[in-house]
Amino acid sequence: MVDWKKPPKLFIPGPVHVVPEVLEQLSRYTIGHRAKEYSQLHGDTVAKLKKMLFTEQNIFLSTSSGSGGWEASMRNLVKDDETVLCCMCGAFSDKYSSVAKACGKNVDELKVDWGRAVTAELIDEKLASGKYAAVTFAYNETSTGVTNPVIEISKMLKEKYPDVLVFVDCVSAMAGLPLKFDEWGWDFAFASVQKAFAIPPGLAIFAVSQRAMKKAETVPNRGYYFDLLQFAKAAEKDQTPTTPAIPQIMALNFQCEKMLAEGMENVWARHKKMAELVRGWAKDKFALFAEDEKYASNTLTAVKNTRGINVAEVISAVKEKHNAAFGNGYGKLKEESFRIAHMGDITINDLTELLGWIDDEL
Amino acid sequence: MVDWKKPPKLFIPGPVHVVPEVLEQLSRYTIGHRAKEYSQLHGDTVAKLKKMLFTEQNIFLSTSSGSGGWEASMRNLVKDDETVLCCMCGAFSDKYSSVAKACGKNVDELKVDWGRAVTAELIDEKLASGKYAAVTFAYNETSTGVTNPVIEISKMLKEKYPDVLVFVDCVSAMAGLPLKFDEWGWDFAFASVQKAFAIPPGLAIFAVSQRAMKKAETVPNRGYYFDLLQFAKAAEKDQTPTTPAIPQIMALNFQCEKMLAEGMENVWARHKKMAELVRGWAKDKFALFAEDEKYASNTLTAVKNTRGINVAEVISAVKEKHNAAFGNGYGKLKEESFRIAHMGDITINDLTELLGWIDDEL
Repeated sequence: MVDWKKPPKLFIPGPVHVVPEVLEQLSRYTIGHRAKEYSQLHGDTVAKLKKMLFTEQNIFLSTSSGSGGWEASMRNLVKDDETVLCCMCGAFSDKYSSVAKACGKNVDELKVDWGRAVTAELIDEKLASGKYAAVTFAYNETSTGVTNPVIEISKMLKEKYPDVLVFVDCVSAMAGLPLKFDEWGWDFAFASVQKAFAIPPGLAIFAVSQRAMKKAETVPNRGYYFDLLQFAKAAEKDQTPTTPAIPQIMALNFQCEKMLAEGMENVWARHKKMAELVRGWAKDKFALFAEDEKYASNTLTAVKNTRGINVAEVISAVKEKHNAAFGNGYGKLKEESFRIAHMGDITINDLTELLGWIDDEL
Repeated sequence: MVDWKKPPKLFIPGPVHVVPEVLEQLSRYTIGHRAKEYSQLHGDTVAKLKKMLFTEQNIFLSTSSGSGGWEASMRNLVKDDETVLCCMCGAFSDKYSSVAKACGKNVDELKVDWGRAVTAELIDEKLASGKYAAVTFAYNETSTGVTNPVIEISKMLKEKYPDVLVFVDCVSAMAGLPLKFDEWGWDFAFASVQKAFAIPPGLAIFAVSQRAMKKAETVPNRGYYFDLLQFAKAAEKDQTPTTPAIPQIMALNFQCEKMLAEGMENVWARHKKMAELVRGWAKDKFALFAEDEKYASNTLTAVKNTRGINVAEVISAVKEKHNAAFGNGYGKLKEESFRIAHMGDITINDLTELLGWIDDEL
């Protein structure tokens, strides 16, 4: 029986399971967003995010889904007569390219087969033409469970193409995988709170470099809702340009405090440990969808359906018996794979339980 | 002492006071937005909104503030070579014009002094030139507490300019003031949930006519985040194109159910009654900021500071003694006026108490 008031416990790759103490944060009394109370909450949350992302540059809180990050980067940082290289390795990095086009920008596409990573070498080959103003890639491709080698890519970009702006979709990576924004020389990185931050959806986080802000000043028709200059102006008062999603920001403050107390190295190690458990099970019973295990994600595992199980039926059975949901393959991979999230406040115990329930159906 | 965890009770014109049973809705277990549970929640909420707004056309749920409505109407429904008439009578209808320009559109402005309403006659005079593709106005100007005569304006537009699209900022009107979207022939009306819906911020509601949807098909570079065609495609499955702000939608469902049970005529009458109380007090002790009382708003009252009180100090004293906050004048009107919200779940008792606290400081 479908009942939105009694939904299953979530192991899908977002939104992920939210623990009761985080849910409680959303039901605090609300705040006037031009009042000192809001500035206090905002300033404190941004300061914590800067520590988590190892940046001293700009952090903006956007009342949008992560998709707002695709739109914001294109509208603010790419001129209509420039060309952007979109690196594509799955449904979400594909979408980044579609959004760029929908915003009227010129796009070239670098595609690898789903299950593979985009490497520094492949990007280097394309950029050698010298025609690109910016490059986009996904840190972690949520549709295939592949993590791109972002450190190698960033190093290559910094060395060989220092003038190309770097936009990184960090939706299922931020807060779960290492992220050193300033050191890696990124210009725009974004994520939404319903992934490794383990908060219900409705808020996105944008990290933006100083040089990106300078560039934005030269781009016309940025619009208003995602205008980075408006965000920067409001940030001077620890505010947002438009009314913010206050419940999610209150929960974000709570989660950031918790993760900083744990220590980011430990947060990342915890995600790796959960991933190893699920990957071990996946390799034992099926196979990884990621062609090369070294690119397999530490925040979610995409499992290749090598046994030809009926994915929809197994998901259904686990839901029926245990009121828990894991994910089918994304789009065209619906039955060819399935996906298990291991990020945020999901635990080793939660995962052990889930894997046992799946085993019962095999 | 500023403490965001113990904020004052809000009588500012948004976000407004949220009652505990609504706050609780935000802390429900979250839902996969591509799951049947979400479609159930979404479909049911949209059906309720259609009843509340007297429309059989499109209702979209946008994860944004109300400002997203300004941007969405311009990006989707106005071509770059068309001209839109923006009717301005305060800070927020001013902003609608700025957003139109920031989106690269041609704008003509019809301005009246703050405190006055935009009338059907004034709009008629401008539209007579035949050069406009669309007209924008605010139902209720939140900065001045003026309600425009939307029924007369709509009747005039329908009779004399049936080809001009009609965009109405309903931010502080929707759910508090009468709104008959289909009958009044509107094309785009939007509001955010932190006003008369009495929910914490983070979600906007768009009502869109069929002919507006047809028009959108002909407008290039609509982008992705606010693309109405993407909303329509997702709506077929009772979904949103991007991850929705689920906590606010759960609270919205609860509030819509409550208001429909009360009956919309009764909801509007309740707002009128609260307004009469505050207006009576304001006229007795000060004066209305609205030049003509017949345009004074039923969701908030802007009071003219005829006694030369120090508005900031009185607000501060009430906050200090009673942990409650009402609003100063907007922007340039900061000390010349102050504002009291009477919408959503604020009650006559709440208002009586607040007015007494203000009286104590006079």
